[in-house]
Amino acid sequence: MSKGEETRQAILDRAVGLASALGLEGLTIGRLAGELDLSKSGLFAHFQSKEALQVQVLEAAAARFVEVVVKPALGAPRGEPRVRALFERWLAWPKAVPQPGGCLFVAASIELDDKPGPARDLLVKLQRDWLDVLAVAVRTAVAEGHFEKSTDPEQFAFELYGTMLMCHHASRLLRDPKAVGRARRAFENLLAAARAPES
Amino acid sequence: MSKGEETRQAILDRAVGLASALGLEGLTIGRLAGELDLSKSGLFAHFQSKEALQVQVLEAAAARFVEVVVKPALGAPRGEPRVRALFERWLAWPKAVPQPGGCLFVAASIELDDKPGPARDLLVKLQRDWLDVLAVAVRTAVAEGHFEKSTDPEQFAFELYGTMLMCHHASRLLRDPKAVGRARRAFENLLAAARAPES
Repeated sequence: MSKGEETRQAILDRAVGLASALGLEGLTIGRLAGELDLSKSGLFAHFQSKEALQVQVLEAAAARFVEVVVKPALGAPRGEPRVRALFERWLAWPKAVPQPGGCLFVAASIELDDKPGPARDLLVKLQRDWLDVLAVAVRTAVAEGHFEKSTDPEQFAFELYGTMLMCHHASRLLRDPKAVGRARRAFENLLAAARAPES
Repeated sequence: MSKGEETRQAILDRAVGLASALGLEGLTIGRLAGELDLSKSGLFAHFQSKEALQVQVLEAAAARFVEVVVKPALGAPRGEPRVRALFERWLAWPKAVPQPGGCLFVAASIELDDKPGPARDLLVKLQRDWLDVLAVAVRTAVAEGHFEKSTDPEQFAFELYGTMLMCHHASRLLRDPKAVGRARRAFENLLAAARAPES
């Protein structure tokens, strides 16, 4: 990695955290410059426009998400343990990559849902990829005989991501100390419904 | 209702729709004035400040939510039918009270989670009230013998609202034509898990 690329990465890591709290729309180049004590013109040289910055922040967050959540979870044994690892890693993710405002993707999903453009297009792709990762792990759990053959992997992924969204909602907005415990129980309920009787 | 109060209500109904798409932060008095072709000074007379406008928009949306979702659902027979009515009414709500940007409360939950103040405080109260309405309906379904005695009403409400949040996410961001179908199936799975064996 060149020195310039390293600097860009370090800036983007900070930008991910900032965007989690301010929103992608609130993350202007001026604001980021103030936060990092860098010159606005220097940041413009790196990112050109607010829209380009938004896209690069989402790309940086996605790369970190793969590194911190997806890859380690795919190292867990095939089947139910891998599904569990994906869930547990997701729970830890806003701390693993500092996001004081909670998961950037959840926040951006609301912020960008009515805003056509390259940032929205990228976010849709990333969210579909994440649902696919979950569904593939579920399909593998069926193949391994951990889950019943009748399990619908896309439906399971839908319900699992719903649990994650509710966990985020209850933790972030409601500051509910039981949020993570309830999410874990919802996850166990999903597993119990999917589990093959013999396992 | 006085003429002034009627005007205020009509303005707030439009403001709810606008806020669903722009966000509560995007809903400035100037923007609302432009949308309604009214004078900015006239709107200031009604709402004083952007913060007061946000609070009144949330209050107006909550009053409409009670009228369009909660009250009619509470007219359904006690037990499972009432839980079902709450879910179905929720699905219809962003159309029943025009919210082109989807459910205002879901959008505001992300927008306000890091913004202390009266709007956030009100939203937290409203979201807790909604979870309570769901939990009470579930508790009644247990009392009616429709759901197993071991059903945890708060846990059920948590999982049900997770289904709603995912439905919103899949419809609004992903434009997934299967979103509502998947949410209905998730809801049936929740019911199946809770249902008393004899019913």
